Amino acid sequence: MEINKENITDWLKSLQDNICKALELEDGFAKFKEENWTRNEGGGGRSRVIENGKVIEKGGVMFSAVSGKIPAFLLKEHEHSITSSSLGSIEEELFFATGISIVIHPQSPLVPIIHMNIRYFEMSNGTKWLGGGIDLTPHYIVDEDARFFHEQLKAVCDKHHNSYYPKFKNWADDYFYINHRHETRGIGGIFFDRLNENEELNFAQNFAFWQDVGETFASTYTTLMNKNKSKLFTPEQKQWQLLRRGRYVEFNLVYDKGTKFGLETNGRIESILMSLPTNASWLYDFKTTEGSEEQNTLNKLKKGINWV
Amino acid sequence: MEINKENITDWLKSLQDNICKALELEDGFAKFKEENWTRNEGGGGRSRVIENGKVIEKGGVMFSAVSGKIPAFLLKEHEHSITSSSLGSIEEELFFATGISIVIHPQSPLVPIIHMNIRYFEMSNGTKWLGGGIDLTPHYIVDEDARFFHEQLKAVCDKHHNSYYPKFKNWADDYFYINHRHETRGIGGIFFDRLNENEELNFAQNFAFWQDVGETFASTYTTLMNKNKSKLFTPEQKQWQLLRRGRYVEFNLVYDKGTKFGLETNGRIESILMSLPTNASWLYDFKTTEGSEEQNTLNKLKKGINWV
Repeated sequence: MEINKENITDWLKSLQDNICKALELEDGFAKFKEENWTRNEGGGGRSRVIENGKVIEKGGVMFSAVSGKIPAFLLKEHEHSITSSSLGSIEEELFFATGISIVIHPQSPLVPIIHMNIRYFEMSNGTKWLGGGIDLTPHYIVDEDARFFHEQLKAVCDKHHNSYYPKFKNWADDYFYINHRHETRGIGGIFFDRLNENEELNFAQNFAFWQDVGETFASTYTTLMNKNKSKLFTPEQKQWQLLRRGRYVEFNLVYDKGTKFGLETNGRIESILMSLPTNASWLYDFKTTEGSEEQNTLNKLKKGINWV
Repeated sequence: MEINKENITDWLKSLQDNICKALELEDGFAKFKEENWTRNEGGGGRSRVIENGKVIEKGGVMFSAVSGKIPAFLLKEHEHSITSSSLGSIEEELFFATGISIVIHPQSPLVPIIHMNIRYFEMSNGTKWLGGGIDLTPHYIVDEDARFFHEQLKAVCDKHHNSYYPKFKNWADDYFYINHRHETRGIGGIFFDRLNENEELNFAQNFAFWQDVGETFASTYTTLMNKNKSKLFTPEQKQWQLLRRGRYVEFNLVYDKGTKFGLETNGRIESILMSLPTNASWLYDFKTTEGSEEQNTLNKLKKGINWV
């Protein structure tokens, strides 16, 4: 396929369709509700939200494609890449950004939370790049599942370049980190940004990698849903899930760049904060019991664990 | 009383005692648990937390007095006031900061959330100031209660200078604002910072005002607890409370300066995030019913309402 705005947009929308279908099938009860919205400054999106399912308590698979004049703060943030490719007429530049963002909060504490985002950005001066990330946040870390998850991501990376998995896995460890808790959000995954052409691959090859990341989501997550959705859990495990969701809220509101970007640019709040769970909890100075499953999970919320 | 570090600290600790006693009495069931902590870089605090009361679900009355070398980011933030009073030797300056922070989350959606913070800051170069804020976040705004709350604050302000209530009330409207929701957090209150001597009052007079703000807390809030604590509420009202608490979490994690300061300076996390409720909720694109009590409350979450 030719790589242009229209084709990328079409491909993302069909990916959104496929992911929603796969999640509905695995949930077996709830259906996504769709909302189309437009942005005053240009573009819009197609939000798909699922709530009160058998497996999924709340989840969103959000597509957007926005465009317009480059906001001032974006110019500042991307100063380096912009000034290296065009000088003088920056204020006149237009941007186009499209992508899919997914967060799924399951009902059961034994099914992990998942997040994926893939995004494409271009400017009228020709600058363009790809970004993405996918990470898993189990309420209880199960080594076998963590290994499976990272194996899937490693396979996608290795297909394109063998430097990608170690590089993007470390990037995810650093990105999905709750600094004030000295904890990773979950078991990480991969994260990458500003991918155009690099020493490893040209743009078209990176684009193929980026597409494969998007396409691995549905099978990877539905496998984990399927494996764990029917397991029985206790009220104590449910309470622990609510506390871990509290941490998820902390990460998203304090650190997540996509969320900050959305809040600062007067984005569509309900789409941005779709990532927050139906219920979350904070208990003062909660301590896990030594040797418990909860303590075991906390011990593994660290950077640099090699799951594969 | 002479105004020095020791006396201010003693006064704050006895205020903490009095407030805790008054809250326990009005709650009628739960007791505060105390924890003393020290800060590696200097100073420490006395945390008092109450949980699972009859009226209070979770609340903290936290005293701290910390000192040491001025952190770099603080120098940057306070650049103006620092460079105007001392040039050259800033890196060598020591600071001392003490205060009380309170957040009370009640069990009942018909009892409002309250927050107060009063703080004193000084540097070894002689710079010093007072700051504070008190604001009320009713899950359901009751005009009579909102008027009562603002009347108490106005009385405290007017006793010292008649410019203070309008000035500090507007400051609170601006400060306790959830920008991305286009909503105030609640019905506001008063907020002030960097109070030393000004055109209205000298430092000792401002200090007396500051003490009066602290002393008005207990009677003002226990009056509102007492008036509303026995009222019956519905499951729908409880659900609305959880959604409003979600907004409270959003404000504290995204905007609150005290929280940001704490998270960025490796502060005592459990003390800082004591402000978060036991449970909070987010529903996708929740809409209130036209003409409902919930809609009535939303309509009043605006800046510039004159309650008195």
